[in-house]
Amino acid sequence: MIEITFNLDYTCQEPLYIQLYKYIKQEILSGRMEPGARLPSKRKLSLHLEVSQNTIETAYEQLQAEGYVESFPRKGVYVKEVDKDVISTTNHEPSSNYIERADNDDYEIDFSHGKIALDFFPFSIWRKLTVQSLFEDQSSMFLNGERQGELLLRQEIAKYLYQSRGVRCSPSQIIIGAGTQYLISLLTMIIGRDAVFSMEEPGFHRTREALKDQGVKVNPVTLDDEGLCIQELEKSTANITYVTPSHQFPMGIIMPITRRMELLKWADNDGRYIIEDDYDGEFRYKGKPIPSLQGLDNREKVIYLGTFSKSLIPSIRLSYMVLPPKLLSIYHQHFSIYKQTVSRLHQHTLWLFMKNGHWERHLNKMRTVYRRKQQTLVDAIEHHFGKNAAIIGGDSGLHLLLSVQNQMSEKELIESAMDKKVKVYPTSVYYENYDAARQQSIVLLGFGGVTEQEIHKGVQLLREAWL
Amino acid sequence: MIEITFNLDYTCQEPLYIQLYKYIKQEILSGRMEPGARLPSKRKLSLHLEVSQNTIETAYEQLQAEGYVESFPRKGVYVKEVDKDVISTTNHEPSSNYIERADNDDYEIDFSHGKIALDFFPFSIWRKLTVQSLFEDQSSMFLNGERQGELLLRQEIAKYLYQSRGVRCSPSQIIIGAGTQYLISLLTMIIGRDAVFSMEEPGFHRTREALKDQGVKVNPVTLDDEGLCIQELEKSTANITYVTPSHQFPMGIIMPITRRMELLKWADNDGRYIIEDDYDGEFRYKGKPIPSLQGLDNREKVIYLGTFSKSLIPSIRLSYMVLPPKLLSIYHQHFSIYKQTVSRLHQHTLWLFMKNGHWERHLNKMRTVYRRKQQTLVDAIEHHFGKNAAIIGGDSGLHLLLSVQNQMSEKELIESAMDKKVKVYPTSVYYENYDAARQQSIVLLGFGGVTEQEIHKGVQLLREAWL
Repeated sequence: MIEITFNLDYTCQEPLYIQLYKYIKQEILSGRMEPGARLPSKRKLSLHLEVSQNTIETAYEQLQAEGYVESFPRKGVYVKEVDKDVISTTNHEPSSNYIERADNDDYEIDFSHGKIALDFFPFSIWRKLTVQSLFEDQSSMFLNGERQGELLLRQEIAKYLYQSRGVRCSPSQIIIGAGTQYLISLLTMIIGRDAVFSMEEPGFHRTREALKDQGVKVNPVTLDDEGLCIQELEKSTANITYVTPSHQFPMGIIMPITRRMELLKWADNDGRYIIEDDYDGEFRYKGKPIPSLQGLDNREKVIYLGTFSKSLIPSIRLSYMVLPPKLLSIYHQHFSIYKQTVSRLHQHTLWLFMKNGHWERHLNKMRTVYRRKQQTLVDAIEHHFGKNAAIIGGDSGLHLLLSVQNQMSEKELIESAMDKKVKVYPTSVYYENYDAARQQSIVLLGFGGVTEQEIHKGVQLLREAWL
Repeated sequence: MIEITFNLDYTCQEPLYIQLYKYIKQEILSGRMEPGARLPSKRKLSLHLEVSQNTIETAYEQLQAEGYVESFPRKGVYVKEVDKDVISTTNHEPSSNYIERADNDDYEIDFSHGKIALDFFPFSIWRKLTVQSLFEDQSSMFLNGERQGELLLRQEIAKYLYQSRGVRCSPSQIIIGAGTQYLISLLTMIIGRDAVFSMEEPGFHRTREALKDQGVKVNPVTLDDEGLCIQELEKSTANITYVTPSHQFPMGIIMPITRRMELLKWADNDGRYIIEDDYDGEFRYKGKPIPSLQGLDNREKVIYLGTFSKSLIPSIRLSYMVLPPKLLSIYHQHFSIYKQTVSRLHQHTLWLFMKNGHWERHLNKMRTVYRRKQQTLVDAIEHHFGKNAAIIGGDSGLHLLLSVQNQMSEKELIESAMDKKVKVYPTSVYYENYDAARQQSIVLLGFGGVTEQEIHKGVQLLREAWL
């Protein structure tokens, strides 16, 4: 049995059980506590550390829930084998943020594509507007709001979408919701589970999982240089297709106008719809922004999805979808029983933020910030790798793919980067058929959350790891 | 064609299209614009009112989306028949809040069960803590948080649930989500759509709809004096059952301990689970609070659902569920891909609110407030109705049912109350088989959102309407 001696900090705000949990987790992750080792009994450790058994129990439960330890009735609690591979290359994301975080602690530079450059966010303005929202009409602000989201905000979103993304809609077509995954679930109900869905292969895994979890069939359709292969789509039985035309996720393809028209033509058939996820369409670095598919559509066949998670802040959880009239009427008839999921206060604050021009200013600033980061990353890769690596999809969005000419598998690339304390990401998770993808020497690098200095250093370390 | 002459207020903050929309809606609701009448063309009205065609179009679209008007290509826009009955006695709630609101404007007293006594909410403390949360660790507060919800908040919730509801769980078993409907959907995925669900008949319609929308079978199980009929449950093929034991919705039955034990015994079988929705278990006026079913359960068979919408404020959209270990592990394995849906700022604020004792104080105060309102309502009913009415389920929660001895159908009760500008609610919407319920002389009265004065006056008006 392991001896745990550890000083709990009673002056610290952090609850004792979290301190204990973190300590043990660190011991396990570092390998100092080995798989199979038995933890002290709750009673013994409680006497030893002079804390309540309840504290010990809660810490052990947290460790167990996250898979660090396993408990056997009347035998005790044992350290489990923690598969480090799983943590960074699993097909699903790790089951707990703790693991992710603990994992992140070991990295110096993290090319995450989920992170954004928060240091440029106008915190003081947002705070001011939040406080203003808290004071305005306080009683209404605390009651349930409109089912589809606050009308004033939907109106600002409609205006923005028209001006900047060419989306043509009235505020009444917009439904606000707590994240794209939630909206995908709602959309599946509106469309109906009998529909056959298809999506890009590779494509956004969260959408694929959300669709499958709704019990619908999802056919993968491969990509060519211009995006989704229409011939393959035509051959499938799908009547709904999910695409990311502004910036294919993860390949970065910007779908040219000819392919867009072909896709719209495909949809011009009873019961067919296109789901256009414009998750980072705001950020394009070369040439003019390409208007949305929705804006090209005259037959009301496109469902447009957008989010403020990438372009503003992730934590307010505010996404939206624009429904064509036919689906909107199904929503009104059958699904208006669902309450709005986004905080009314945040909706009001965002409305003020948009109405007063802060949103436009913020977007413009972020475009410059990300353009510079993107350029820095591309330059660094060209400088350090030359012909030994090729960039895929670097003209838009907050990430790019790197194809390395060194015969390493995806896992080998990630692990050798890990040895240099640099975190890069797999692309195989985005494939329905991921086996082949795992053999490719391709990884994903996000640049939204790293500084230019980190980019320079990170790419240099990657060269040391890979060449 | 109708002539619309109406002065738009350019000094008002409200967008022009909303002003126009509201004006036309009011004209339709008041009957001044009759069904079948044609609205002016967009072009004509735009010239007449000197606003852009876009403004007219948006107003018309909003009216159309909400079912006030109908548009026919090349023929024009026509006023539709608005069925006032549908508004208050429909089996689903009306599709839009506007209708609800327009409707509410006509009432003097609204015995809504969805409303709570917001005038007692400690706004200034909540505001202060929100601002404090905005300043604390600003960068983390804006990033995505923990998938299950902030650990600190889950810890406070676990403590509260144990102390006040007898729920035994660790914070790691709690999953926070944007509303009970969202959590029901997530839960259905975790349990799997092959399961056969059952629920109380009558029962909470939002849950029934959410389950059905997830594509699962839902068997109604009738109630007797003690709640869900176990024999009937045994006979059904259901392996999951949804109950509201603390305060059956809508009948108000408090399930006695014997029935609770029988229900737990039923669940003690492979693959069976009980979903305990404790939506207003905080508010009990007679006798001691009855601990939750979850707290009685030794076999990890109860999924506990709770919400802050009734007891705190609806607009933060914060509910939670407590999963038994087996389901928690399925969640970790397959559904951890779903991001947290509740704003991190609100979670942090609620944590501060609970940690500093405000939550407990607020709950105690609200118990007193609601107890007084409930007593006032019961007294007023006894005073005005005597033996002509019977109260059903008046010992707990924020609503009661009133059975009136006057042979009126539910619809007649609601409509004659409406004539006196008092809004009461149907109970038939809570039945899977609602036809019989519509013939009963029973209506629902919520008292959370009305003042004691309104209660007195409202009950007096109801007597005038009904006796």
